[in-house]
Amino acid sequence: MRGIRNTLQPVNILSPEAEEKVHEASLRILRDQGVSFEEPRALDLFRRAGQRVDDAGQRVYFDPGFVIETAAKAPQRFVLHARDPEWDVTLGGDDVVFAPVSGPPFVADRERGRRDGTLADQNDLVRLAETIDVLHHGTPEVACKDLAVESRHLDILGHQIRLSRKGMIGDAWGTERARDHLDMMAILFAGIDAAAGRGRGPSSAAAGAAPRDAIADRPVIIGIINSNSPLRYDMTMAEGLIAYAEAGQVNVITPFIMAGATSPVTLAAAVAQQNAEALAAVILAQIVRPGAPVLYGSFLTGLEMRTGAPAFGRPEAALGILSSAQMARRYRLPCRGGGVLTNSKVADHQAGQEKMNMLWPLLLGRVHYVLHAAGWLDGGLTASFEAMVLDAEMLEMTARFFTGLPVNDESLALEVIGHVGAGGHFLGEEHTRRHFKAEFYFPTLADTEAYDTWVKKGSRDAHERATARWKKLLASYQEPRLDPATDEALAEFVARRTRAIAASA
Amino acid sequence: MRGIRNTLQPVNILSPEAEEKVHEASLRILRDQGVSFEEPRALDLFRRAGQRVDDAGQRVYFDPGFVIETAAKAPQRFVLHARDPEWDVTLGGDDVVFAPVSGPPFVADRERGRRDGTLADQNDLVRLAETIDVLHHGTPEVACKDLAVESRHLDILGHQIRLSRKGMIGDAWGTERARDHLDMMAILFAGIDAAAGRGRGPSSAAAGAAPRDAIADRPVIIGIINSNSPLRYDMTMAEGLIAYAEAGQVNVITPFIMAGATSPVTLAAAVAQQNAEALAAVILAQIVRPGAPVLYGSFLTGLEMRTGAPAFGRPEAALGILSSAQMARRYRLPCRGGGVLTNSKVADHQAGQEKMNMLWPLLLGRVHYVLHAAGWLDGGLTASFEAMVLDAEMLEMTARFFTGLPVNDESLALEVIGHVGAGGHFLGEEHTRRHFKAEFYFPTLADTEAYDTWVKKGSRDAHERATARWKKLLASYQEPRLDPATDEALAEFVARRTRAIAASA
Repeated sequence: MRGIRNTLQPVNILSPEAEEKVHEASLRILRDQGVSFEEPRALDLFRRAGQRVDDAGQRVYFDPGFVIETAAKAPQRFVLHARDPEWDVTLGGDDVVFAPVSGPPFVADRERGRRDGTLADQNDLVRLAETIDVLHHGTPEVACKDLAVESRHLDILGHQIRLSRKGMIGDAWGTERARDHLDMMAILFAGIDAAAGRGRGPSSAAAGAAPRDAIADRPVIIGIINSNSPLRYDMTMAEGLIAYAEAGQVNVITPFIMAGATSPVTLAAAVAQQNAEALAAVILAQIVRPGAPVLYGSFLTGLEMRTGAPAFGRPEAALGILSSAQMARRYRLPCRGGGVLTNSKVADHQAGQEKMNMLWPLLLGRVHYVLHAAGWLDGGLTASFEAMVLDAEMLEMTARFFTGLPVNDESLALEVIGHVGAGGHFLGEEHTRRHFKAEFYFPTLADTEAYDTWVKKGSRDAHERATARWKKLLASYQEPRLDPATDEALAEFVARRTRAIAASA
Repeated sequence: MRGIRNTLQPVNILSPEAEEKVHEASLRILRDQGVSFEEPRALDLFRRAGQRVDDAGQRVYFDPGFVIETAAKAPQRFVLHARDPEWDVTLGGDDVVFAPVSGPPFVADRERGRRDGTLADQNDLVRLAETIDVLHHGTPEVACKDLAVESRHLDILGHQIRLSRKGMIGDAWGTERARDHLDMMAILFAGIDAAAGRGRGPSSAAAGAAPRDAIADRPVIIGIINSNSPLRYDMTMAEGLIAYAEAGQVNVITPFIMAGATSPVTLAAAVAQQNAEALAAVILAQIVRPGAPVLYGSFLTGLEMRTGAPAFGRPEAALGILSSAQMARRYRLPCRGGGVLTNSKVADHQAGQEKMNMLWPLLLGRVHYVLHAAGWLDGGLTASFEAMVLDAEMLEMTARFFTGLPVNDESLALEVIGHVGAGGHFLGEEHTRRHFKAEFYFPTLADTEAYDTWVKKGSRDAHERATARWKKLLASYQEPRLDPATDEALAEFVARRTRAIAASA
């Protein structure tokens, strides 16, 4: 089981009264304004659950009591399974789980610059992330421009499964892509079960409309569900949510709130509107399947008024993370937080500063799942090789931070202090040798050389050093062995579905 | 009155039991190991206060009850006065006060590189800091290598007073330098009083052994007192402490704890030893003058085992800040924390990341005074013009963070959400226009341009952009008018003391 135990008390940025007001405002929004779902099945499900539905306006108006009661059906904590059970993670409770950047159209490294994402680049990013243990879940993804849009989701997940032992992030954009990914995970886990002497094996799962028995009661994939804020879920997202919930898989419900554009500019309203949108989708998942695993997600930030870009790494984002996580705690829902984000185009001082300014609030809010925890640049337009390794060092420092400073006779070391005495030093003490490895974080990228040594070594800044680091890590990558029958069944599925999609185009 | 109101609940990184154990360990260290003071007057003061003193070993052994009782005489909160009362700050309570880098031997900027500090460079740094409102107290200082070591403290403070309206950081290295700085502040404040029709004026204060009436009950300058850890205060520091306490001025007592070198490697022991060292000096100040203002300071960090350098911006430092601040709270002492520190040689990703990793714990620990909050590079060896402005942006973001997210009818904006409806946007709303300026932080350095625009503008990273920024700010500097009689009295004092020092050399 991977992840880091977050031992901080959560910071409640909203007073109890303020939290109550945000909650009440959300319920009023849900009751009076309602939320649009551009998907007839969603409307029908809500109607049958007793909510008022305006079919012409595709709008659902929510009863406050129903909202609270239904949201409470979601699990507070669950295990998310990986191909390799060593990489299972727990979402909820005290754990924090880091996942790499997912979704940018561009890829960059310092030597080759920025370019359109390709499958080759993505595979290298997946390999790189595989060598970084502090990335606990998921694999990087870029929009592979060298593949056909209609079927690339098949290739992407296929390669991710083959190259990585970690848990998977799937596509939830519409019923077809969602089902394809759910089917692939069913094949994978049927294969895993068969290798362990359970179930009917991967080829059975792959045959025809693959039965999803192997994953029916086992969360193995997460899908990101974004609202089309304000107060709307479009067809594709509602379809994806329903498909994932039906299959008992994880919906990460993340309203896209950019205060001033997709919500009112005031953060209080942004949080209240986000809360309404998130609860509406959490409830849909519970109607589809009571107990369906969900994350209450937030990506809330402000708007850069001069350029219209979302502003990452800012105080507004920090306040957004803390207040969002506080609302998730109120409903006992595991929480996804924005990510370790920046607007910077390169891994420079701005990036380091903005990212750390996201990471601390994520930890203080006790966010459970951090997507885009490493590798993100340029407001999410670029996945960067250098940023992957630089950000990993931040995350590793977090792991050391949470081991804390245990206080006991051995760590207080009064006899060592007495022994060394005034004006001595502790470098040569046996106590120092015994503890320094556990006590200190040993960075691989941060420079602590003397100035002259640093100059002799080429006066390289962190961005330059990161290039050498990711190349070294990538070279160290070893492909984890996938059971050949499973590999074959997956490849067959991908080939068959790719042909079918091409034929229907 | 300047400073930022820190509204976070303090993070207690030590459990109540752990905090108690650290406290008890400190008292045992003070009682059984004692602390060395290489200054006969200090030993004599402790002896007369009833403590056991070993004169041969220059060691004081402390009675635990006396420690607690005497430390409680220090004020919990006090005002630190500036030349311009608009720049007065409060130390203690809810306030956090930022001060720029102080002390490096080198100065650097991106175009001219690193070089020995000079008075001209320092004056430019002081001017630059004067244009940055989020630096609430103090002025930058570098070791001006172009001035005679024996008398440069006079020129340095003289120029700082002339160029800046803000409160002053003085020299506490030995009796002579301490007295010179106290005398200069007395001249300054006698001048301020005279201009306001009070007191006898600056020339009277400057005449002969300057009477310090003007500052007797008015804290106007802080001195940094570092222990020579483990468990030792050398002659110069003890002399400085006594001089500042006698004059009712502020001793910022900062043990120099580098775990693994000057304390045991385990952080629990480092905090306990630091606490013992800090309390010993806090008590000396209270013996000299009950109620003398002090700050409980911490610079605690780990050792970089490969190079022997102190490791800044690391999880060890974050834990050190939080546990140190917690101990200061226990004794109700206002607290100084390490600073916004980095080992990086340039303002790169490492610097941004490490500095933000210092700033958050400082805020969470509710540290009251942050020295080296801007401009620090290379473990404190370099004061950087670019770092000054980049760090200032971090500090400004803090100010916005602490205005929080007020929740009320206006900020919840339910009618705006109803008005815009599902699928609309809020950019054109009157509510947006009314609030965006207060709601968002508007950075001056962070880039949020579209990628192509950024390329067109020269693909400049944050470090490059910072050069243009500091030059612009420096050009905007206007020297604040100093009352001519005070200016003259200060210049006379500096000239007279410089001659006297040269004559005695």
